[in-house]
Amino acid sequence: MIKNYKKYFDEINSALNKIDLNHSPKELYDPIKYILKMKSKRVRPILSILAFKLNKKNWGNYINPILAIELFHNFTLIHDDIMDNANIRRGKKTIHKKWNYNIGILSGDLLMIIANKMLSELPIDILPIALQRFNDTAIKVCEGQQYDMNYENKNSITEKKYLEMIRLKTGALIGFSLELGGIISKMNDKYSKKLYQFGEYMGIGFQLKDDYLDVFGDQKFGKKIGGDIILNKKTFLIIKLLKIANKKEKIIINKWMKNSINPKQKVKEISDMMINKNIDVITESIIEDYFNKAFKCLDHINIENKDELIGFTKNLIKRKT
Amino acid sequence: MIKNYKKYFDEINSALNKIDLNHSPKELYDPIKYILKMKSKRVRPILSILAFKLNKKNWGNYINPILAIELFHNFTLIHDDIMDNANIRRGKKTIHKKWNYNIGILSGDLLMIIANKMLSELPIDILPIALQRFNDTAIKVCEGQQYDMNYENKNSITEKKYLEMIRLKTGALIGFSLELGGIISKMNDKYSKKLYQFGEYMGIGFQLKDDYLDVFGDQKFGKKIGGDIILNKKTFLIIKLLKIANKKEKIIINKWMKNSINPKQKVKEISDMMINKNIDVITESIIEDYFNKAFKCLDHINIENKDELIGFTKNLIKRKT
Repeated sequence: MIKNYKKYFDEINSALNKIDLNHSPKELYDPIKYILKMKSKRVRPILSILAFKLNKKNWGNYINPILAIELFHNFTLIHDDIMDNANIRRGKKTIHKKWNYNIGILSGDLLMIIANKMLSELPIDILPIALQRFNDTAIKVCEGQQYDMNYENKNSITEKKYLEMIRLKTGALIGFSLELGGIISKMNDKYSKKLYQFGEYMGIGFQLKDDYLDVFGDQKFGKKIGGDIILNKKTFLIIKLLKIANKKEKIIINKWMKNSINPKQKVKEISDMMINKNIDVITESIIEDYFNKAFKCLDHINIENKDELIGFTKNLIKRKT
Repeated sequence: MIKNYKKYFDEINSALNKIDLNHSPKELYDPIKYILKMKSKRVRPILSILAFKLNKKNWGNYINPILAIELFHNFTLIHDDIMDNANIRRGKKTIHKKWNYNIGILSGDLLMIIANKMLSELPIDILPIALQRFNDTAIKVCEGQQYDMNYENKNSITEKKYLEMIRLKTGALIGFSLELGGIISKMNDKYSKKLYQFGEYMGIGFQLKDDYLDVFGDQKFGKKIGGDIILNKKTFLIIKLLKIANKKEKIIINKWMKNSINPKQKVKEISDMMINKNIDVITESIIEDYFNKAFKCLDHINIENKDELIGFTKNLIKRKT
């Protein structure tokens, strides 16, 4: 977290700490405490604050409804980890592994309810529109997750379908994080919607960058390179590679997909093939397109000082791991 | 469904049918259509309507927020069935068995979001209080479910803990169904709260009656008697039996709990022991106590004509299967 934004990060964590989770039964509340203590950049609520600050100053009065987004995001992580059968989240055991599947399901449910409860603290004049937009976003996130699961079992997906999936699964909530800041600050409707679009494009860009960095990122902090390749995950890069590969290359890729004996060699061969086919350059350029599209949305918002929001976003874009 | 109340039942089902669930991906929406088409008495939304009608007539204007309760209830059924590893719900395959676990989790999540969305259609002046009460109720339901799971693995639970568990798991939502009718009809706060209490006691009574009927109900429609005994479920009857049984009897009960070879004999011996120890009579009397406590709450509501609500409730109480 860079210096300029650390104050927001700290305020968010301090407010998260103040949520009273000391209730019974502890099997239900402990997992929520556990996931909220995991390392996290708190990108979504920071974006809400920065969007709010385009128009007004007193964001501290609305910290609980802003936290609702972070809580909802964490709810999706708990349930997604169950559905993906993931063992590790941010370097820690996932909830269903540390406790069990049922506790994962139920503590996730409870966390979603707490998110709703905190969003409902909004002032009455903006509550209906915020709820409507929040619930519509939540529906998109579920739809995106279902498409993601559907695609896991398919041999080939189109680039278009993949982009639509990440728009729903990732773009929607980032879009709403920004829009909520606009709504709470009583920005005009047109601008709030532009903020949503800004976030949606940005979210797609982030996910594509995630896909990119998994193969071409800096190998720091013991981060494994090529994890997605090893797990045969459908990422933008592999979809693109399969699309432009010739028959012979497709056979090689499919051979590797069935191979779990030599992961190091698998990552090397597939990523070499990607470089050979310019997948890295193509993907970089598409990511840049999405970020450009995102920033263009901001041009339609006729507010003088957007530097803080732009600065934070550019910082997120820059990451190399 | 008896004649007088069939009109509400029909209106609820017709309104449920109007919810637009023709969206993609169908793996996500089909399970929701499926569970909403299952046989159901629609007790909760009917109670909302009857509570509303204590004070006002035009309940049809609020049908969507009233449906939210039925949708939330069905969300809990989907996730509870996963957690209980249940195969059958209302004579049909459970969602996670007909589709799979992940679809059960995610379609349940979506159904909860749709419930929130429909509740949010309430008029702005009552929206905040309705949301607050709804979310507090939803939290209770989760807590009750977690206690229920905790108790499954325990050798002995006290009667008090069991009653508290069913108060949360079953009583809370029935209480809120009634309270919501009061809130929407703009009944005074004191009366709405009495309606909640009425429903909470009633819900506890219903659950105890469920426990009772599993052993002592009429054997109609091929309903299996003693299903809870066969599955070693912690019901009020078995908790009570274990409490008043002597050492020798406890050994016999525990022996049967480990026995899955002769279910028919198991049900016969345990239920004979229950009759011998007067568990049937004791339970009947406690159920009656709860229903009496429930109806006493209504005495505090100074509204002339409560016959329709009382009639419907008495009908629910009378059931023999």
